[in-house]
Amino acid sequence: MVIFRQKTFFQSLLVMVGITLGACQQENAQNSPIEKEVEQIPVKEVAKYVNPFIGTSNFGTTNPGPIAVRGMVNVSPFNVAGAQNLPLEKDSRWLSTPYVKENTFLTGFSHVNLSGVGCPDLGVIITMPTTGVLETDHLAYGSKYSNEISKVGYYSNTLDKYNIKVETTATARSGLSTYSFPKGKANILLNLGLGLTNEQGGMLKIVSPTEIEGFRTVGAFCYYKPDETYPVYFVAKFSRPANEFGVWQNRDHYKGVESEWMKAYNGKTIVKKEYTKEIVGDSIGGYMRYHFDEPTQVEVKIGISYVSIKNARENLEKETSGKTFEQIRQETNKEWNQYLSRIEVEGGEEEDKVKFYTALYHTLIHPSTLNDVNGEYPKMKTRETLKTDGTRYTVFSLWDTYRNLHQLMSLVYPKQQSNMVKSMLQIYDESGWLPKWELNATETTTMVGDPAGIIIADTYLKGIKDFDIQKAYEAMIKSADRIENNPLRPGLKDYLEKGYLTTSTTNSGSVSITQEYNIADHAIAQLAKELGKEQDYERFSKRSLSYKNLFDSEFNLLRPKNHDGTWLSPYRPETGANFVKNLGFIEGNAWQYTFMIPHDITGLKTLMGGDQAFIEQLQKVFDNQQFDMANEPDIAYPFLFNYIKGEEWRTQKTVNSLLDTYYKNTPDGLPGNDDTGTMSAWAVFSMMGIYPVEPATPVYALCTPKFEKVIIHLDKTYYDTDTLTITSKKTTSKNLIKEIKIDDVPFDNFFISHEQLLNSKNIHFTLQ
Amino acid sequence: MVIFRQKTFFQSLLVMVGITLGACQQENAQNSPIEKEVEQIPVKEVAKYVNPFIGTSNFGTTNPGPIAVRGMVNVSPFNVAGAQNLPLEKDSRWLSTPYVKENTFLTGFSHVNLSGVGCPDLGVIITMPTTGVLETDHLAYGSKYSNEISKVGYYSNTLDKYNIKVETTATARSGLSTYSFPKGKANILLNLGLGLTNEQGGMLKIVSPTEIEGFRTVGAFCYYKPDETYPVYFVAKFSRPANEFGVWQNRDHYKGVESEWMKAYNGKTIVKKEYTKEIVGDSIGGYMRYHFDEPTQVEVKIGISYVSIKNARENLEKETSGKTFEQIRQETNKEWNQYLSRIEVEGGEEEDKVKFYTALYHTLIHPSTLNDVNGEYPKMKTRETLKTDGTRYTVFSLWDTYRNLHQLMSLVYPKQQSNMVKSMLQIYDESGWLPKWELNATETTTMVGDPAGIIIADTYLKGIKDFDIQKAYEAMIKSADRIENNPLRPGLKDYLEKGYLTTSTTNSGSVSITQEYNIADHAIAQLAKELGKEQDYERFSKRSLSYKNLFDSEFNLLRPKNHDGTWLSPYRPETGANFVKNLGFIEGNAWQYTFMIPHDITGLKTLMGGDQAFIEQLQKVFDNQQFDMANEPDIAYPFLFNYIKGEEWRTQKTVNSLLDTYYKNTPDGLPGNDDTGTMSAWAVFSMMGIYPVEPATPVYALCTPKFEKVIIHLDKTYYDTDTLTITSKKTTSKNLIKEIKIDDVPFDNFFISHEQLLNSKNIHFTLQ
Repeated sequence: MVIFRQKTFFQSLLVMVGITLGACQQENAQNSPIEKEVEQIPVKEVAKYVNPFIGTSNFGTTNPGPIAVRGMVNVSPFNVAGAQNLPLEKDSRWLSTPYVKENTFLTGFSHVNLSGVGCPDLGVIITMPTTGVLETDHLAYGSKYSNEISKVGYYSNTLDKYNIKVETTATARSGLSTYSFPKGKANILLNLGLGLTNEQGGMLKIVSPTEIEGFRTVGAFCYYKPDETYPVYFVAKFSRPANEFGVWQNRDHYKGVESEWMKAYNGKTIVKKEYTKEIVGDSIGGYMRYHFDEPTQVEVKIGISYVSIKNARENLEKETSGKTFEQIRQETNKEWNQYLSRIEVEGGEEEDKVKFYTALYHTLIHPSTLNDVNGEYPKMKTRETLKTDGTRYTVFSLWDTYRNLHQLMSLVYPKQQSNMVKSMLQIYDESGWLPKWELNATETTTMVGDPAGIIIADTYLKGIKDFDIQKAYEAMIKSADRIENNPLRPGLKDYLEKGYLTTSTTNSGSVSITQEYNIADHAIAQLAKELGKEQDYERFSKRSLSYKNLFDSEFNLLRPKNHDGTWLSPYRPETGANFVKNLGFIEGNAWQYTFMIPHDITGLKTLMGGDQAFIEQLQKVFDNQQFDMANEPDIAYPFLFNYIKGEEWRTQKTVNSLLDTYYKNTPDGLPGNDDTGTMSAWAVFSMMGIYPVEPATPVYALCTPKFEKVIIHLDKTYYDTDTLTITSKKTTSKNLIKEIKIDDVPFDNFFISHEQLLNSKNIHFTLQ
Repeated sequence: MVIFRQKTFFQSLLVMVGITLGACQQENAQNSPIEKEVEQIPVKEVAKYVNPFIGTSNFGTTNPGPIAVRGMVNVSPFNVAGAQNLPLEKDSRWLSTPYVKENTFLTGFSHVNLSGVGCPDLGVIITMPTTGVLETDHLAYGSKYSNEISKVGYYSNTLDKYNIKVETTATARSGLSTYSFPKGKANILLNLGLGLTNEQGGMLKIVSPTEIEGFRTVGAFCYYKPDETYPVYFVAKFSRPANEFGVWQNRDHYKGVESEWMKAYNGKTIVKKEYTKEIVGDSIGGYMRYHFDEPTQVEVKIGISYVSIKNARENLEKETSGKTFEQIRQETNKEWNQYLSRIEVEGGEEEDKVKFYTALYHTLIHPSTLNDVNGEYPKMKTRETLKTDGTRYTVFSLWDTYRNLHQLMSLVYPKQQSNMVKSMLQIYDESGWLPKWELNATETTTMVGDPAGIIIADTYLKGIKDFDIQKAYEAMIKSADRIENNPLRPGLKDYLEKGYLTTSTTNSGSVSITQEYNIADHAIAQLAKELGKEQDYERFSKRSLSYKNLFDSEFNLLRPKNHDGTWLSPYRPETGANFVKNLGFIEGNAWQYTFMIPHDITGLKTLMGGDQAFIEQLQKVFDNQQFDMANEPDIAYPFLFNYIKGEEWRTQKTVNSLLDTYYKNTPDGLPGNDDTGTMSAWAVFSMMGIYPVEPATPVYALCTPKFEKVIIHLDKTYYDTDTLTITSKKTTSKNLIKEIKIDDVPFDNFFISHEQLLNSKNIHFTLQ
């Protein structure tokens, strides 16, 4: 998935994108958000290295608001509404984040948000403290702010207009805020009209002077599938009873004869004081109003659920009752330390530690938790209430994450990865299909390919097997073979008959999709082999190489073919970068896609004319500015030099350079959309010196580690080894690998299998 | 209140109108809808005389749908939407009824409706059966219809487009419908977007293939007080599980950049199949879809509540579970017979029996029931849940009903009248003020004057005393004396200082309002006297005559005065009829108001120059077409001839003529808006030969009875007598009274006190 810099590219967007949203926590649906295995390891104070502002500019679309590990809730400052924020204003352009660092005008704090995605959605359940006269129009009550602090599980600022200090923290399913008001009249607004999503409608009811309940409709992610919209339920509790309360409603502007009769209020805001029944509408809100004789702090706690108001209330109570803001902040911080400590790094620059732990933090946000503390969650599409034993994860931006994020989870958080696979199988049970881009129990069907099976195969082949592999295999075969009404593999008929999609099959990405299906078929083949299904292994192995039909040796690149088998002509391989429409490629061009054959680099080399031709062509991608660090198709390219003996230095040099150029301890310190942690996972792996270069094949390419010592604490439930260390010693500043030793034995290879990695106690790099 | 014939008069409307909506039933909040005292009397089959089509044309604004006595629910055919119904189409003009007899295009059946009111509201929770492809646009799925039958508690028609027979009936809080579908695909739609109200928004959720729940927002009656809107909750149960179900939502039409991205569905209808969570919006609905192999009947039961969905479900269960459609229809019919049998008529024309019982039926619709079977009801304005022991009545269109309807209730249904007064006192407890025009726990503040106290005094002085008279008196004094922020008596300061409102006090009805305050003050005086508050008696008696300041002997009419005490000039007393704006008078002119001094006709006579001048002036009203039978200010005029000895024949002649001219056994058989039964109460009294000519004074004017025998079964809980009979013998066709005898003793008076009436066994009229 990708940076959305310009609003003109959105046609193609309807078939793409990439997220993932915090779901870790209670594998057994209990209140403790920590998986058991995490507690086996010594916890270090490493959360301090996380800088949540990284990715809040340059379309990183992360936000600095507190979130628990894979939390459902994230209390983000919301500063993308209002002309003051132009050009990064949500209604004037495609904008997919509730917060942009360079913006200055804040209109509240949204409680459910996506992190690192490319389509606007969520960004709702927005609270805002104000003082003085009640004002319900966010453009009027919005404020500049200062004194911003963001740490793991904590955000604070001061609203300049009102001199209110805001502090926020979060549990898995609740957001907590304290508003420190000056003396005088104060208001806490809960604005259901404002939001990042373009979906409309909500319901709100003031239950008492200390409680508001309701829901906000969200969905139609990427402005696609408008029937896939759904409510986010909430219960808000206030630590002090309001002196006054009420609701507001912005009336539609009627036309025709009725407008004559209702002119007193046509299109106006109606405030209903002390009203206690439900209000509904597209632009509604509720307020609590106070009269303070002295500076006073009010705490607002908001519980969220995708099942019901009742569950939102239960989530809030189970996770926060009896606890102070400070206790919860510390618990959330502790939880993050427990997770982040699974990888310890020593030596290296302090800045690199910030980059590393912030990246790791970003990989632990999505996929996120969908189920409530009682285990209930909504069924796909129809949203009937179901119950899960483990965590039901959501926000599966799989076109992005199949490439590296799940490989990181399998290595470091295998219990989470197992539950993610189980969640995918729940989705299969509920909808009949594995997920493609699942979001809160809707299948958004954005982006292309059939990525879930790749992840499942990769997970299983890495030894994580505590899920129903027969069902998973059945699901993978279904999407691979079902020609009619197949939501995962449109164009499958042509793919099976011709080996590729044509420019008639789709006007959007015939080559890219062929490649994706090849990779998915390769994954099935690998799994078939493991499961002893020899025939399937052969069938899918063969299918996985059909990309060769699209290799045009005239360009030494892939090239779209027409329905009659002729090449698309004229052909300009550069076209397609930066979202310019390209018949053959999705979010990229021939340069950015041709090497995306991770399972058959050997075959590709042969097609290109051997090692040298391959190297030259690959190097051209970088030399001619065709490489796009901000999108997924080519993100494994830097590691492909390892496939040519003697050229591995190019991988090391390129990766080092990309890390330095695109990953920074600044708001623009991500290459672009984080793509629910995919860009961050790239950095985590790269900085450790290993990269999972071939999905569904348990192998890592090696590159230069950034730290003198990396300790990965492995989960003994899944792996026999306790810890794996990667050490390095630098002799010059070039940071190129001179020698590799595994457990003191020289290792003459720039790839290492997952099995060997796990059997190694220490991998040592001597650098020159 | 009045007929709204033209949409140009609506400025003045914001201060007027008149309803009342079915609330009888369980005085003890039990399921049995019959008050105890009703069961004391022999029940006759008189409901057969009711023709519910009377009032469904000529802006009578009644409807032919079934309703229980003072029911909350009324299942009315809804035929006022769509161009096919022009000119009587709800969005093209001011239209305040869900049904018009001459219209032909039906778009469903609405379950909560007002009867005989002048402002559009309610007309929501609309169901519609269709066949074939699912269509959710009412303009597309609407149908012509035939075979209309309407009886008490029953309505039926055939939808021509679909060949579906529809039958409906109702309990107090539930509507029942059976849809007889032909073989094939069938749909039952529940359209929350369509309605008579101009308020917007609703919520709907499909609970199971046999149940839908939700609410619809209504209110802002008369397009006034937009903060007085509120939800009507419902639960709909279907006798057969749907084969498919779903919800729909008409999306707003977005503009700007977003419209580019969402063009596939911008402004379109979205159907969400098998969706089970809440949807909200201004234009939403739910459907149940069936596949029938043979003609099949489906029953739909809808329970309503103004408190909660839970209560709507409880109402439905308590009132309908275990009963068939036919049983409920018979129970409702029986209940009506029990109520209507309280007055028996014999002799006379069959048509007159139809006119009489239909009129009595119309007086038993509003005020109607607000509380649920468990006694819960919403508090005024804030709508917190309260509980009542007796019935909490609602729809108090008091400017209309204080003149005769409550007098009829006091005489024939004193237990109901007592509970209506208690409901007014509950409203006072909850809001601090007695009602003026209360509708479902909102004070609409339409129309003028301070009518509640008049009704309370009238009720008490008739011997119905089982309510807290001290509280009532306190409430009456409050609205009579509180100068600041008095919602009932705006302009009170001028009224107290000058004796009248001026053209500066209000630009709408300074004379009318002065008269209304005089009448209200007279009522306080009468009650004060009864309670031994001599000082108040004198003070308010004096206040009640201040209209004299506005009597201009130049015209022998009332005339508005300016702030400086001068007459409004130039002055054309005829101006103001038919809603033409008139500074001095509301919904009328000087002719229609001058005689509205029911408590001081003697004084008025004197002002006019004696009996002869009074008679001449009063007769001019009729002779010069200034009399308006369709509005309340002058409806007692015909009885005022009784005040002049020897001229009583004019009353008889005029009343006879008006009954013949304006009351008919045809859809246009009401003079205009029924005004929640006020016009009908006029007919009921007039046809019995008695009319309560002076509110808050227990006296009736006598006129020609329409029947040979009228038997009123009195309530022994309140009155010592069992029955009162009014008999008459006709000798010629003139129908003028020759002689009156009470219990065989000649009675030389054309007025009879309430006390004497109750002490009489028989009043006999000999007619010539």
